Amino acid sequence: MDNHFTCYAFGMVPPFAQGLVRDLRVRWALEEAGLPYTVALVGVGEGAISLADYAAIQPFGQIPALEHGDLTMFESGAIVLHIAEQSRVLLPTDAAARAHVQQWMFAALNTIEVPIQELAGIDLFYSGAAWAAEHRPAVEERVRQRLAQLTARLKDGEYLVGAFSAADILMSTVLRILRHTQLIEEQPRLLAYKQRCEARPAFARALEGQMAPFGT
Amino acid sequence: MDNHFTCYAFGMVPPFAQGLVRDLRVRWALEEAGLPYTVALVGVGEGAISLADYAAIQPFGQIPALEHGDLTMFESGAIVLHIAEQSRVLLPTDAAARAHVQQWMFAALNTIEVPIQELAGIDLFYSGAAWAAEHRPAVEERVRQRLAQLTARLKDGEYLVGAFSAADILMSTVLRILRHTQLIEEQPRLLAYKQRCEARPAFARALEGQMAPFGT
Repeated sequence: MDNHFTCYAFGMVPPFAQGLVRDLRVRWALEEAGLPYTVALVGVGEGAISLADYAAIQPFGQIPALEHGDLTMFESGAIVLHIAEQSRVLLPTDAAARAHVQQWMFAALNTIEVPIQELAGIDLFYSGAAWAAEHRPAVEERVRQRLAQLTARLKDGEYLVGAFSAADILMSTVLRILRHTQLIEEQPRLLAYKQRCEARPAFARALEGQMAPFGT
Repeated sequence: MDNHFTCYAFGMVPPFAQGLVRDLRVRWALEEAGLPYTVALVGVGEGAISLADYAAIQPFGQIPALEHGDLTMFESGAIVLHIAEQSRVLLPTDAAARAHVQQWMFAALNTIEVPIQELAGIDLFYSGAAWAAEHRPAVEERVRQRLAQLTARLKDGEYLVGAFSAADILMSTVLRILRHTQLIEEQPRLLAYKQRCEARPAFARALEGQMAPFGT
């Protein structure tokens, strides 16, 4: 396959989602890998494709999707893994370290993001509902437990598995979903880890790229 | 690393979880790959290690974990991917097909399992709660939408990406979580897909292995 990458992204999202949409992960991985890419907007925006047309690319209507030469794929975790496999700067060559990066990629999306996204859903979509008020404390406690367990595995000044990797892209973008709370701030070592990831120039370029069409 | 595999599994779980615990995925992958393995029980059972000792292996207290020679790892998705990389019977060698298998692996756990697990949590852990009764219809509708979108991508008599792969292990075990409902039955093509996966001899051996210590 040729080496041209196209990342699909929304042309507009509500303010609560700006800077959190999952194409951020794809842009960040491409920026870290030094792989040139173009962005295709979905919904609104100059040259954007319609949501109806996008459904043929992404069966669940979710952002992101990626084109890489003749390959079209979706799911941010799988896309970041694919990019990491192309470049070797985001995935170690040592077999055990590589397995551990993949372990933390799945842990970020399946163990950490699940309760975090449930909490964000309650706060951002159901904040006025009686059920949300009743259930929120249990979800927040679940998030707090997962963050404490994750923090216990982090070492000061480091990334999840040796050097910065694809796992850190997924984990730190998952942690960003809690920006409307103070839950990360309760864990100083975790907050420092997140800030260490976000201090990377490739992250800044990825975030700037996502925000640009929103004009905010 | 040497080629010995050890899969961690619970020595006992409540009936509603029997046949659904995530070590089923790991056992199934190892059975498909023809890789010999031993099982290490956690909690209760002959020779079981304590939950306290298991916390040093799995920071979130979840089953499964895998030992492969000197490598210890967790997260069922990552473990199934690791096993698939060892054997080549669960992951295509063609680059595009391989990317699509990984896409569906992440889709199974991040797009399909998330609302399914939320519904199962409501039904199995919170069935008497007022908030659960209020919120359940929205979650069920979300599950129904995801199943319809998935079914639209399935072709009669086939697997997710060409031959049976690691993606089918994850997807069909995710669909099993809905066994207390009739939601899969609403989509005959999806039901046939799930049954096609479960008809594999390797699945039967994996399920028998998980159930054996429960003595039921």
